[in-house]
Amino acid sequence: MNNAEETLSIFALGGVNEIGKNMYAIQYGEDIVVIDCGSKFPDESLLGIDLIIPDITYLLENSSRVRALIITHGHEDHIGGVPYILRQLKLPVYATRLTIGLIEVKLREAGLLAETELIPITSDSTVDLGSIQATFFKTNHSIPDCLGIAFHTPEGVVVHTGDFKFDLTPVSEQYADIHKMSDLGKNGVLALLSESTNAERPGFTPSERKVGEHILEAFSKARQKIFFSTFASNVHRIQQVIDAAEATGRHIALLGRGMENVVGIAAKLGYLTIPEGMLVKPEEVNRLAPERIAVLCTGSQGEPLSALSRLSTSNHRKVHILPGDTVILSATPIPGNERNVSRIVDNLFRLGARVVYGSGSVTGLHVSGHASQDELKLMLTLMKPKYFIPIHGEFRMLHQHGLLAESVGVDPEHIFIVNNGDVVDIQNHVARQTRKVTAGNTFVDGWGIGDVGNIVLRDRKHLSEDGILIVVVTLSKTEGHIVSGPDIISRGFVYVRGSEELLDQANQLVAQTITKLQAENMNQWSTLKIRVKDVLGRYLYESTGRKPMILPIIMEI
Amino acid sequence: MNNAEETLSIFALGGVNEIGKNMYAIQYGEDIVVIDCGSKFPDESLLGIDLIIPDITYLLENSSRVRALIITHGHEDHIGGVPYILRQLKLPVYATRLTIGLIEVKLREAGLLAETELIPITSDSTVDLGSIQATFFKTNHSIPDCLGIAFHTPEGVVVHTGDFKFDLTPVSEQYADIHKMSDLGKNGVLALLSESTNAERPGFTPSERKVGEHILEAFSKARQKIFFSTFASNVHRIQQVIDAAEATGRHIALLGRGMENVVGIAAKLGYLTIPEGMLVKPEEVNRLAPERIAVLCTGSQGEPLSALSRLSTSNHRKVHILPGDTVILSATPIPGNERNVSRIVDNLFRLGARVVYGSGSVTGLHVSGHASQDELKLMLTLMKPKYFIPIHGEFRMLHQHGLLAESVGVDPEHIFIVNNGDVVDIQNHVARQTRKVTAGNTFVDGWGIGDVGNIVLRDRKHLSEDGILIVVVTLSKTEGHIVSGPDIISRGFVYVRGSEELLDQANQLVAQTITKLQAENMNQWSTLKIRVKDVLGRYLYESTGRKPMILPIIMEI
Repeated sequence: MNNAEETLSIFALGGVNEIGKNMYAIQYGEDIVVIDCGSKFPDESLLGIDLIIPDITYLLENSSRVRALIITHGHEDHIGGVPYILRQLKLPVYATRLTIGLIEVKLREAGLLAETELIPITSDSTVDLGSIQATFFKTNHSIPDCLGIAFHTPEGVVVHTGDFKFDLTPVSEQYADIHKMSDLGKNGVLALLSESTNAERPGFTPSERKVGEHILEAFSKARQKIFFSTFASNVHRIQQVIDAAEATGRHIALLGRGMENVVGIAAKLGYLTIPEGMLVKPEEVNRLAPERIAVLCTGSQGEPLSALSRLSTSNHRKVHILPGDTVILSATPIPGNERNVSRIVDNLFRLGARVVYGSGSVTGLHVSGHASQDELKLMLTLMKPKYFIPIHGEFRMLHQHGLLAESVGVDPEHIFIVNNGDVVDIQNHVARQTRKVTAGNTFVDGWGIGDVGNIVLRDRKHLSEDGILIVVVTLSKTEGHIVSGPDIISRGFVYVRGSEELLDQANQLVAQTITKLQAENMNQWSTLKIRVKDVLGRYLYESTGRKPMILPIIMEI
Repeated sequence: MNNAEETLSIFALGGVNEIGKNMYAIQYGEDIVVIDCGSKFPDESLLGIDLIIPDITYLLENSSRVRALIITHGHEDHIGGVPYILRQLKLPVYATRLTIGLIEVKLREAGLLAETELIPITSDSTVDLGSIQATFFKTNHSIPDCLGIAFHTPEGVVVHTGDFKFDLTPVSEQYADIHKMSDLGKNGVLALLSESTNAERPGFTPSERKVGEHILEAFSKARQKIFFSTFASNVHRIQQVIDAAEATGRHIALLGRGMENVVGIAAKLGYLTIPEGMLVKPEEVNRLAPERIAVLCTGSQGEPLSALSRLSTSNHRKVHILPGDTVILSATPIPGNERNVSRIVDNLFRLGARVVYGSGSVTGLHVSGHASQDELKLMLTLMKPKYFIPIHGEFRMLHQHGLLAESVGVDPEHIFIVNNGDVVDIQNHVARQTRKVTAGNTFVDGWGIGDVGNIVLRDRKHLSEDGILIVVVTLSKTEGHIVSGPDIISRGFVYVRGSEELLDQANQLVAQTITKLQAENMNQWSTLKIRVKDVLGRYLYESTGRKPMILPIIMEI
């Protein structure tokens, strides 16, 4: 089978040295298969950017060879980029039913649903993609219907775990295919790509079922309304809330678009079992006795526009939190979200609510969906790969995952900690990492994809720190003297009221500078502009300690 | 003694419903005493702001009554505002020797040292301030020489704890005055103001000495250079690093201005004991054997310009981290700093360093300087105050601290959870909270204090998200037609290259709008400007999904 000319190549277009924006590719000869197409949110330095998706230049340049996009599961960091990418590159998309249900929502919004080929698969499917054959295995995670993928290539088997944990007592009997994993390892795995999100965390991640026990306890103790906020996609968690509501005789109302969407899809597709008559509309909450209602809502990460955020400031039109109500934040704040979560908790306490918040390891009301160190070692032991590429994580997580692999016997020389775009080439069972393909961040801002880059962001940063000063002067075309101005307009710099003297001085300085340069015949526009910026910049810095953007507008008439 | 006409008033000018910027006032009749004058760093929404200090309008309006500023200890959230406030209000400043040493650095930089009356006190001092007499008690905290204060007023005793923990095995024998605290309680405390930083944390904060054991262990295991980063002000921690270096035969080099400053002051004043010949200059690090050197540096909170940050990117001129070196981050990241800390850890791993990082409760290499719940209850039990005002913390912390007070027997009706500016008035031993004084944030931006407010910040936010578009048009004064322009200049909006069509269309739209308005005789400037903004704003939002600031500049000649 093996053609000595051909090379098996493995690379990430997103997802390593970062959290989110996952996209990986397996290439053999003329066939490329893409795994996942995620998005991530910008950090606070990327001003005005709404979303980040992978740079798919490489795929566009090789579009005739790309056979398929396979999605491991329906989280945003795995499907968030799908509508943006499909607009540029037509591809069949393979995923399980729930994942397809979630992708459909996005494609419908983007007007791409009709033209996209969405192919449902199960963990028993086999998909032939040229020289690459994909088979699947079920994994446990914080959303149902997750897949790991085995790519059978002429060079050997490459396994991509997707996101996973080992939950031995899963909710809704969603057991992982541990025997399939074992068989893959027994028959020989050439390369393993395994997720690293919790590679810094010792031990074994607790079962989702443990959370169910704490939910039932919290429901049993509450005497008034309960507000339960969690990730809308955590269908198992939601099932356990429904079960607790049933056991304690409460109705459930859904708040937040994400919650309504996911619960609707999951119930329709049979991933959620909701007793007849349990769901009530938000407007019915006030008509029911407080001990007969639980509200399931979004906002557990402190998202400023979420249902919980609006509830915490009494800004929800239909539902109100009253003193003595219980609010449960069933999530551990993701780094970067702590301040927003804290602000909501403060406001909930101000309303007189009993608030259960903080790390899930303390409250018992949240567990991670990702494998901790012992589970990562279990996966490595089951797969016993020749080569190992840790994926999904920042450098320190990939590094720690590499150490875990070493600890269970993987040859340190066979561990590749890569950047997005770094290609691991395997030929005749020997792997090398020497070349790169284009990879990086594509920024989404409003409707624009990729039209905001470093210069625009640098300007936004400059504007955000010290504002802008615009100097308008009109010069006589024939004589060169100042006809009108200089007029100074500022935004985001100082209060104009109270700064009259500063701005007057600035004005005079500009006029003097121009007059002097005219007298010296240094009156090319570019010289004038540079000197005005210089002189004014220095004056403003000395007077205020600030460096606003200065924009001289010089006109001739 | 008690004059029935007079009222004892207690209020915060900073430090409640926030972390940092601490400033409290005790007022009796004609006498006001101020406690602490801290600063805090802005969150990411306050674009371009360097520092936040308390609004002292009330003190300025009552300047003749303000008797003194007493500082509890030398942390930035207690002394950071001192130079800014003293520039507006002349006051004698009382503090312990180390605290004065740290304040002197600030006053020297601000050119205020000569004119400021700095009065050293000890825990045995008594300070008479009109009708108010202050006595002091030592507390344990993460900086030496901390004080709690008892204010003896005709109405009764008010106790302010400052920051504290109960460290029963403190470093350098800095024991707290637990018997003085007990005596205060025994003799009757009218009102207690106690810090709430760790009010959410169960248990008893471990002793600083525990950290010392882990430092010694880490030093004993390291085979090459050690980099130890911590808060420069944590003199006890630094002493323990020095002790471990002595025990393991290492020299110490200091990196970072803050570290050099504090170690210099603390050593000079006798708060640090450094063996003769132990300190070496940074340039000597490379000449010493790697197992003979430890570097003490700033940057444990990921500060981007700190020594550790520069080391992590190999950007330090004199010192380099090599594979196998050990780097210890002796601090738990403060919420908001996690990303910066993580970035540094990633870079340190890339350099091949062994990195010890993460929560102190896991590494053993950091403990908090603040009292946990059991210690807060101990303080409440010692003081058994009639009235309780939790201070130093966000609402949820104050709220939790209030619950702790209830649990040890304080009457819930006697617990005041206040906002900055809320006044608790006590007359004839009855407390009420009904009135307010001016309080709030004063922003420091560059040299400017208070000249940036909400309008400037709103503009910066707008500019930061979508940039600015400036439209320049010159109209004929007599005829009204367009003489030159419209010219569109944009910054931070889109790449100009690639957006020519968009900007051309925008240009034409402006020209049409103006021509049409002129034809309709709607040619007042204000109308022209509003309509240009309107039409252009709508067009840009429809085309790009963005809302840049639009600034029409219309001139007549």
